[in-house]
Amino acid sequence: MDDFSVSILGCGAALPTSRHYPSSQVVNYRNSLYMIDCGEGCQLQFRKMKLKFNRLNHIFLSHLHGDHCLGLPGLVSTLGLLGRTSPLTIHAHRDAEKLFVPLVEYHCKQLPFSLEFHAIEPQKHGLIYEDKSLNVYTIPLKHRVPTCGFLFEEKEKDRHMLPDVVKFYQIPVYQISNIKKGADFVCADGRVIPNARLTCAADQVRRYAYCSDTLYQKKIIQYISSADLLYHEATYGKEWERRADETFHTTAEQAAMIACDAKVKKLIIGHFSARYKDDESALLQEARNIFPETVLCKEGKVFKI
Amino acid sequence: MDDFSVSILGCGAALPTSRHYPSSQVVNYRNSLYMIDCGEGCQLQFRKMKLKFNRLNHIFLSHLHGDHCLGLPGLVSTLGLLGRTSPLTIHAHRDAEKLFVPLVEYHCKQLPFSLEFHAIEPQKHGLIYEDKSLNVYTIPLKHRVPTCGFLFEEKEKDRHMLPDVVKFYQIPVYQISNIKKGADFVCADGRVIPNARLTCAADQVRRYAYCSDTLYQKKIIQYISSADLLYHEATYGKEWERRADETFHTTAEQAAMIACDAKVKKLIIGHFSARYKDDESALLQEARNIFPETVLCKEGKVFKI
Repeated sequence: MDDFSVSILGCGAALPTSRHYPSSQVVNYRNSLYMIDCGEGCQLQFRKMKLKFNRLNHIFLSHLHGDHCLGLPGLVSTLGLLGRTSPLTIHAHRDAEKLFVPLVEYHCKQLPFSLEFHAIEPQKHGLIYEDKSLNVYTIPLKHRVPTCGFLFEEKEKDRHMLPDVVKFYQIPVYQISNIKKGADFVCADGRVIPNARLTCAADQVRRYAYCSDTLYQKKIIQYISSADLLYHEATYGKEWERRADETFHTTAEQAAMIACDAKVKKLIIGHFSARYKDDESALLQEARNIFPETVLCKEGKVFKI
Repeated sequence: MDDFSVSILGCGAALPTSRHYPSSQVVNYRNSLYMIDCGEGCQLQFRKMKLKFNRLNHIFLSHLHGDHCLGLPGLVSTLGLLGRTSPLTIHAHRDAEKLFVPLVEYHCKQLPFSLEFHAIEPQKHGLIYEDKSLNVYTIPLKHRVPTCGFLFEEKEKDRHMLPDVVKFYQIPVYQISNIKKGADFVCADGRVIPNARLTCAADQVRRYAYCSDTLYQKKIIQYISSADLLYHEATYGKEWERRADETFHTTAEQAAMIACDAKVKKLIIGHFSARYKDDESALLQEARNIFPETVLCKEGKVFKI
């Protein structure tokens, strides 16, 4: 598995079909797993994709429509049965806690781990999670209920030491970390070696943006600009654009316009309406006409970021 | 489709596996569908098996462990999105209503149909549903929470008219229904023709019994005696008999002993523990040693009753 990727557990819309599960994905960043949305059946898909439950510590819910969150009680129950002890944090609209806690309390007596709800404000762009190498931001979206997308962004990385400089300047090990962060080096004889002579540029930070469900919204471009990978909902084809407007969803063409304007590297479209029974190739074509680097989402696929 | 059959949507136990969905089945009786248990993902399986949502009016929940009922909110939401108008009745322990109504109210604003909860008493054997041709009874089981199985039993059927008697005795059409129910016929000249000369025996009533989850319980034999088909849980093999006892489950051997003692025609075993990862052939063999007419349950299978 790559050190930054996203695994697709489900990419259908609200109505079940024989081809798609409702929304759920798992971002893998250096073997830590972050679930985005938690549609019914996602725990089954999680198992099928051989992901490891004990690496999952955070779940991010874009909104509280059933097809994005009804897999949560079953997943929590399973984690309890497996004897999990480390806390699990659900980042979601504040209603999530009052909605799911009674169910969890009923079904999982004496849950052996702590289930923590972190209330997010979907209408604000903000940092909602960080650790030493990753930030997660909300992306305000426009749907029928409070909804946000999520941006997973690596933190600034260390610069790379140039070959042989450590030996050449006799740099003590304890100074290497500072130099990688940009410090100059002062030799024993007082000479200052500028950082540019010691290091080369750090790897670029990588970014993954998830935007579902939402009306076509140019406003989001500022938040996802030049992302390496964008998942954007494309519930409908352009022949249903009016329906997309009415239900606060996006067409494949509109998703591609967002990808194009935001200059992302690659676009995955998903959240397909059940009316596309046999395949979504028409949606793909529509998007590719505008943004050629588009691919269709599919259960079981893993996209490198 | 046969006029009395059961379709398997899920037959795994509480922990998800890559091979099984949690418990759910659909009994088809003359094109009316009755769901038994409603584990997570059952609506997806329902679609895959090409069953018709509009033929489903009753759901029976054996107990309120998550793996037997957490598919309910998603299913109800889907029925709402599909514009259902006829009522849906959930026959379940009284807690089901307080557990699921808040979730349904949150996720399904203005549900276009009435969701009715019919509280059943799992500890009592009783008739909980009937229509003109079918009775459904509870079968008290012994599990960690109040639990019952269900017996689907055809009502007594009409006797068959013997060939040519209608013409021979000039029986008026309006009397045929009574004669089929056992009445004698009085001819115009006053002669009484006994029913035995006019009819032959009715078809035998068919019965399907569902028993999951439960400790091995000889007491249930009286309720399921000579059923045409018995689904009985067999969570474990005999090497885990102690574990079965502790968790109030049954081994394959015990399920077969029940089938044998109850003189049922055929046994389906299911609710397999996740520890049987690759196949359940050991469980099958164990059961067949005692009751040869045993088959393994499997998602997608349809069993004729």
